[in-house]
Amino acid sequence: MRAFAEKVFASETKDEDVREEISLFGVADCPILNQELAHHVTMYDDAERRLRHRLRSQQVEDSPTYLEVPHFQRVTITGDYAAGRKVHEAGTAEISPNRVAILLDRGGEVETERDQVQPVFTSPPKKGDDPFDTKSLAANAGYVARMHDGVIYVYKDEAAADKNQPLSLPAPDYNTFIDDMNFLIALIAQGPTKTYTHRRLKFLMSKFNVHEMLNEMEEMKELKKNPHRDFYNCRKVDTHIHAAACMNQKHLLRFIKKSYRVDADRVVQNIKGKDVTLKELFASLNLHPYDLTVDSLDVHAGRQTFQRFDKFNAKYNPVGASELRDLYMKTENHIGGEYFATIIKEVASDLEDAKYQYAEPRLSIYGSNPNEWTKLSSWFNKNRVFSPNLKWMIQVPRIYDIFRGRNFVPHFGKMLENIFMPVFQATINPQSNPELSIFLQHVTGFDSVDDESKHSGHMFSIKSPKPNKWDIVKNPSYTYYIYYMYANIAMLNQLRRERGMNTFLFRPHCGEAGAITHLLACFMTADNISHGLNLKKSPVLQYLYFLAQIPIAMSPLSNNSLFLEYNKNPLLEFQKKGLMVSLSTDDPMQFHYTKEPLMEEYAIAAQVFKLSTCDMCEIARNSILQSGLSHEVHSRSVLLLKRKQSFGAPVVLWVSRWLRQQSDRFIQGLW
Amino acid sequence: MRAFAEKVFASETKDEDVREEISLFGVADCPILNQELAHHVTMYDDAERRLRHRLRSQQVEDSPTYLEVPHFQRVTITGDYAAGRKVHEAGTAEISPNRVAILLDRGGEVETERDQVQPVFTSPPKKGDDPFDTKSLAANAGYVARMHDGVIYVYKDEAAADKNQPLSLPAPDYNTFIDDMNFLIALIAQGPTKTYTHRRLKFLMSKFNVHEMLNEMEEMKELKKNPHRDFYNCRKVDTHIHAAACMNQKHLLRFIKKSYRVDADRVVQNIKGKDVTLKELFASLNLHPYDLTVDSLDVHAGRQTFQRFDKFNAKYNPVGASELRDLYMKTENHIGGEYFATIIKEVASDLEDAKYQYAEPRLSIYGSNPNEWTKLSSWFNKNRVFSPNLKWMIQVPRIYDIFRGRNFVPHFGKMLENIFMPVFQATINPQSNPELSIFLQHVTGFDSVDDESKHSGHMFSIKSPKPNKWDIVKNPSYTYYIYYMYANIAMLNQLRRERGMNTFLFRPHCGEAGAITHLLACFMTADNISHGLNLKKSPVLQYLYFLAQIPIAMSPLSNNSLFLEYNKNPLLEFQKKGLMVSLSTDDPMQFHYTKEPLMEEYAIAAQVFKLSTCDMCEIARNSILQSGLSHEVHSRSVLLLKRKQSFGAPVVLWVSRWLRQQSDRFIQGLW
Repeated sequence: MRAFAEKVFASETKDEDVREEISLFGVADCPILNQELAHHVTMYDDAERRLRHRLRSQQVEDSPTYLEVPHFQRVTITGDYAAGRKVHEAGTAEISPNRVAILLDRGGEVETERDQVQPVFTSPPKKGDDPFDTKSLAANAGYVARMHDGVIYVYKDEAAADKNQPLSLPAPDYNTFIDDMNFLIALIAQGPTKTYTHRRLKFLMSKFNVHEMLNEMEEMKELKKNPHRDFYNCRKVDTHIHAAACMNQKHLLRFIKKSYRVDADRVVQNIKGKDVTLKELFASLNLHPYDLTVDSLDVHAGRQTFQRFDKFNAKYNPVGASELRDLYMKTENHIGGEYFATIIKEVASDLEDAKYQYAEPRLSIYGSNPNEWTKLSSWFNKNRVFSPNLKWMIQVPRIYDIFRGRNFVPHFGKMLENIFMPVFQATINPQSNPELSIFLQHVTGFDSVDDESKHSGHMFSIKSPKPNKWDIVKNPSYTYYIYYMYANIAMLNQLRRERGMNTFLFRPHCGEAGAITHLLACFMTADNISHGLNLKKSPVLQYLYFLAQIPIAMSPLSNNSLFLEYNKNPLLEFQKKGLMVSLSTDDPMQFHYTKEPLMEEYAIAAQVFKLSTCDMCEIARNSILQSGLSHEVHSRSVLLLKRKQSFGAPVVLWVSRWLRQQSDRFIQGLW
Repeated sequence: MRAFAEKVFASETKDEDVREEISLFGVADCPILNQELAHHVTMYDDAERRLRHRLRSQQVEDSPTYLEVPHFQRVTITGDYAAGRKVHEAGTAEISPNRVAILLDRGGEVETERDQVQPVFTSPPKKGDDPFDTKSLAANAGYVARMHDGVIYVYKDEAAADKNQPLSLPAPDYNTFIDDMNFLIALIAQGPTKTYTHRRLKFLMSKFNVHEMLNEMEEMKELKKNPHRDFYNCRKVDTHIHAAACMNQKHLLRFIKKSYRVDADRVVQNIKGKDVTLKELFASLNLHPYDLTVDSLDVHAGRQTFQRFDKFNAKYNPVGASELRDLYMKTENHIGGEYFATIIKEVASDLEDAKYQYAEPRLSIYGSNPNEWTKLSSWFNKNRVFSPNLKWMIQVPRIYDIFRGRNFVPHFGKMLENIFMPVFQATINPQSNPELSIFLQHVTGFDSVDDESKHSGHMFSIKSPKPNKWDIVKNPSYTYYIYYMYANIAMLNQLRRERGMNTFLFRPHCGEAGAITHLLACFMTADNISHGLNLKKSPVLQYLYFLAQIPIAMSPLSNNSLFLEYNKNPLLEFQKKGLMVSLSTDDPMQFHYTKEPLMEEYAIAAQVFKLSTCDMCEIARNSILQSGLSHEVHSRSVLLLKRKQSFGAPVVLWVSRWLRQQSDRFIQGLW
C-alpha cells in the first residue's frame, strides 16, 4: 500500500489541475454500491427523522420548546434507484443532509470513545472577576517535559524522564498515522471509490434541492414563529480572522491619523541608540498622515493579488512601509504593542456593541526562539487585551526554511520545542510564568498558516527524518508540519485535561491551494479547517469531510482576491451537500469595505448564492459549533452534534477504525 | 416607415427572449462600416486625448491642478482592421471609452442648442436660512394654464387661453416625436445596424480591456498621489431609492418596537368614528411588537420574489399588514405621516454622519385626485423633512387602469391633469400654495414606475386616442405614459425657467423588464433612467445610450431578487463599454442587510465584478453627474460632461437631428 500511496502522492502533488468532476460512468456498476445505498437510506428511522427536523428548524440560541415539529413534506424513495436493480428501500428519507453524518456514525462502538474527549474551554469571568487575576493559578505538578523524536512527553520526574517512562497519557501513534495516511492516499485514488462518493454527493445535493423546493415555505413559517430571534440576533462567530488584519482599511487609516494628532512627539522607535518620534518616523518616510488615504495606505487586496500570495503578504505593510506594520500591527515594538492592542480593543468594542458577533483572532508564534510566548503573553496582560467577544488562536507560520537559513534554529525539532515547550512548562507549573498561564486560559486553539501553493516535494513516510534530524534548509512537507503540531497538541491536551485546564483545538489552514494531501492530513488530525476549497477536487475527501462533519471555516471574499472567483466558490454546494461550513472574514483589512466585515461576508454570500434566512442561521449555528467559544455559549446552540478533538491516540486510531467500519462492505469488496 | 415600425413593434413586444447577442457575421461586410470606423478613430486628436486622461484619472471632488497628465500607454491601431481592407487609421486611440461620446458629439452644431438647456437646481440654504421659509416666494405671474390634448399649455391670460394662443415657450412636437420613434423602431431592427453597433460595442469593450491591462497600475499610482481623497470620501449619490423602503429591515423593526414602547396609548387610527390606539392596533393584528423579528416582519425580498413583481410589492406590508404600512410608511394617515417622516429623517441623519453619501428618495403622486400635492407638501413642511443630503423625486405609478376601473378619473387626461396642473398653478402663483411651492424647490425630478413586465399591447402612434379621449379601462402603453409625462415636464420646465425657478429632470424606471420599446421611448425623452437591463437585448439601443451618454442608475442587488441574477448583471459590461452607469439601492428595506446599504451595494459590485478603486470612483462620479444635486455640489465634480435635459422641442428635435447626423453616412447608406 505504501508503494501505491507514493505513486499516487507523486501524481497528486504534480497535477494540480485535476478535473474537478470525475465521470459518473467511468466505472462499471458495482453491486456493493447498491447495497451500500440501500443501507444508507434504511438508516433513517422515524425517531431520528423527528430529531432532524428540529435541527434544521433550530435557530442558534434557546431551544424553543413551544415549537412543534412542523409538517415537512418528505421524499419517499422506493423501487429502482440509481443502479438498474430493484432494491426496496424502506423508510421515507428526510432531506436535510447536514444531519446525515451525525446519524450515520451512531451505533458504531467507536462513538463512545469519541464521546469521552470533549474540548475544555475557559468559562467567561463572572461579574466582578478580573480575567487577568493570577491568584487561582494551579500549583506546580512537578512533572518534567522532554521532547523525544519531535513530540514532547511528560514524566513524573527527572528520574522517570531519564529512564524514558512517560506518564501513561495516551500518545499519538506514529506508525498508525503513517499506515492510515497511506490507506487514505490509496483510497482517494481508487476509481470505484471516486464514483461511489461522487454519486453519493450528487445524491445528497439533489435531495437537498428537493427538500428546499418542498419545504422552503414551511421553514420560513417556522422562522417567523420563533419570537425575538432572527438572523441579526442569532450568535455568529468570525471563525477565521488574523489579528493583524482584523480592522478594516478605513479603521486603520483613522487610527493612524488619530495617533499622529495625539502622539506626534512620542518616541516610537529607537534606531541605533537614537530615539525616533512618530513625527520623525513619518518624515523619514516622506509622508504626512493628514494626506494619507485608503489608496495610499494600500493594504487592500485587488486584482493584482489574485494567485499571488506573495503580493498579498506585502499588503500587510501600510504604504508599503514595514516600519508602520511594526508600529501599528505588532505586539513587539518600542511602545510595547500598545497601538496594536488599542486597535484590537476597538474592534472588540464594535463586536460587543453588535452583541451577537464574536471573533477568533489569530496571533503568531513563530518558533524561532523560546521567549516568544513570554513576550506575547506579556503584551496580552499589560494591555489587558480581553473581550468576552474574542477568543484567541495561535497561528504558527510554516517558515522553518527561513529560520534554518538564517541559523536561528539547528533543526526542525528545535522549532517545535520553541513552539510547544513553554506551554508544557506553564501547564506543569503555572506560577513559573503567570502571564503566560493567564494568556493560555484565553487561547482556544492552534492554526498552521502559510501559502499552501508552495510545494516542498517531500512525502511524509516512515523514511522521513525525525524532527531533530531534519537539519536541512528545505522546508518539510505540509503533512509533516501538521502531524508534529497535532502530536504535540494532543500530548498537551492530555496533560491540560489531567490538570483541569482548558484544552486546545487544532484548526489549520487547509485546502486553500496546493496538493490534495493537505486535506487528507487534516482529515486525520484537525478539529476543523479553514478554507477547504480543494475538496472540490476530490469527491472521496469531500465525502469523508461530510461523513465526519469536520467543520470548514470558509472565506469566499478572501478566496475571491486570492485563489478562486466568488461565483466559483463551492460554499453553496458544500452547504447543500451537508458539509459543515461557516463564514469568516480572514482579513477584513484586505478584503472588506464596510464597518461590519462579518455582516458584509454574510450579506454577499446571501445575495450571490441566494441563501434563505434559514441557510444563514444554519451557517451561523455552524460557526458557533466549530468555534472555541465557552460551553456556556455553546450550550445555548448545540443540540445534538458531537465534536471530535485532537486528543492523541484515540483520534488517529479512530479515523482508521471508523473509516474501515464505515465503508466496511464497500471497502472490503475492493481491497 | 410606420408600417415597418408596427411590424417590428409587434414582434419585439411579443418576443421577450430575443437572443442576447446577435451573430457577428450575420451580415455581409459593408464598406460604410469601415469608413465609419476609420472616422471614429481619427476623431481622437491629441488635445482631446489629454482631456480624456484627466477625466479617467479624475476623482470626484476638487480638480487637482497639481496632477500631471500621467504617461498612459496607448494602443495604436494601424493597417487592416476588422474588415479585410487596408484602412489607415491615423492617430493613436486612448482607450477610456467613457469619454468617447462627449467628444463624438462635439463639433456638431446641435451641441450649441443643447448647451443652452441646463437644468436648474435649488441651491442649498445658506447658514442660518430656513429651507421652509416662504417669504421669498415669487409674485403671481397671472398666467393661465390649460390642458390641451394631454399637455398643459400656459397663456398670458384667460382671453389668450380662449383664443388658444399660448406663450411662445417652445413646445414638444407630437408629430416629430412619432416620426422619430418610428424611425428608431425601424433602426433597431435593421440587420446591418445591429451588426455595426454590436461590433462597435465589442470593440469598445476590447479597447477598455487593453487599456486596463496596460494602465491599471498607472491609474492606481495616480489615485495614491491624490491626497485626502479616496473612495470613502468621494461623494456618491444613491440615484434610485424609494422613500417607503429607504430604511433597512432592521431599522424599521427597531423603529416599530421603539414607537410601541413610547407611544402605545397614542391614537393612530380612527375606524368608523372609533379611536384606535397603537396598542389596540397591534392587538387587533394578534401581534406584540416585542416578539417581532426581521423574519416575522417579512419585508425582505427572497427567492420567492424572483420574477414575481406582485409578490415583491406585497413585501411593502410589514407582517403582511397594510395597516402597518399605512402607519409607518405613508405620508397620509391619522398621525399626519409623523412616523414615516421620522424614519426618513433618521436615514438622512445617517447619511449626514457618513458625510459623503447622498440619496434621492422617491415619493408618490398618483394622479387620482388634484389634492395629492397639497397633502404631500403639507406633510413635507409640517414634519420639516429636509436634509442637505437628500434630494426629492416624484414617482408616478402607471396605474391609470385601476383608477379608471374604480371611476376615480373619467379619462387618462384627467390623471395627467391631477399630476401636473397643481405644479403649474404653484409655479404661476406660488403664494396660492406656499407649502407646495416650498416643496417643489426641493423636488428635482419625476420618475415613472410600475412593473414593466406587464404588457398593454397598445402601440403609440398618430392613431392613438388623445389622453382626454382615452377613457377605456385598459392602461395605455409605456411609451404613451412616457411621452405625456415628458411633454408636460418639458412645458413645466420652460415655464419654471422663465420664472427663475428650479426645473425638473425626467428619470423614469426603464428597461428593468418588458419590451425593448421602453428603452427607445426613454432614449428620446429621459434625462436618465433607472435599471436599463434590457439594453443587453438590443445592441443598437445600447450603442445609442452610449453615444448620447444617457446615464443609467443600476441596482444589481434589486435585480438579483427580481429580474436578473447578480452574475448576469450587465453593469460591468456597460461600464467597460463606456455607458454612464451609477449604483443605487432601489429598496434597502427589501434588499440590503447592513447599516450602510449604498456601501453594501458598492462593496458587492466591487467584489463580484472585481472593480478597481478607479472604477468605483468613476461610478461614484457618474452618480453625482446624473443626480439632482445642486450645482454647488456638481461644480466640484463635473469637468467636461454636458447634460441634456427635458426642455421640450429642442430635445425631441435634437434626438432625430443628432441621430441622423451622427450616423450620417452609415444610415444614408442603408435607407
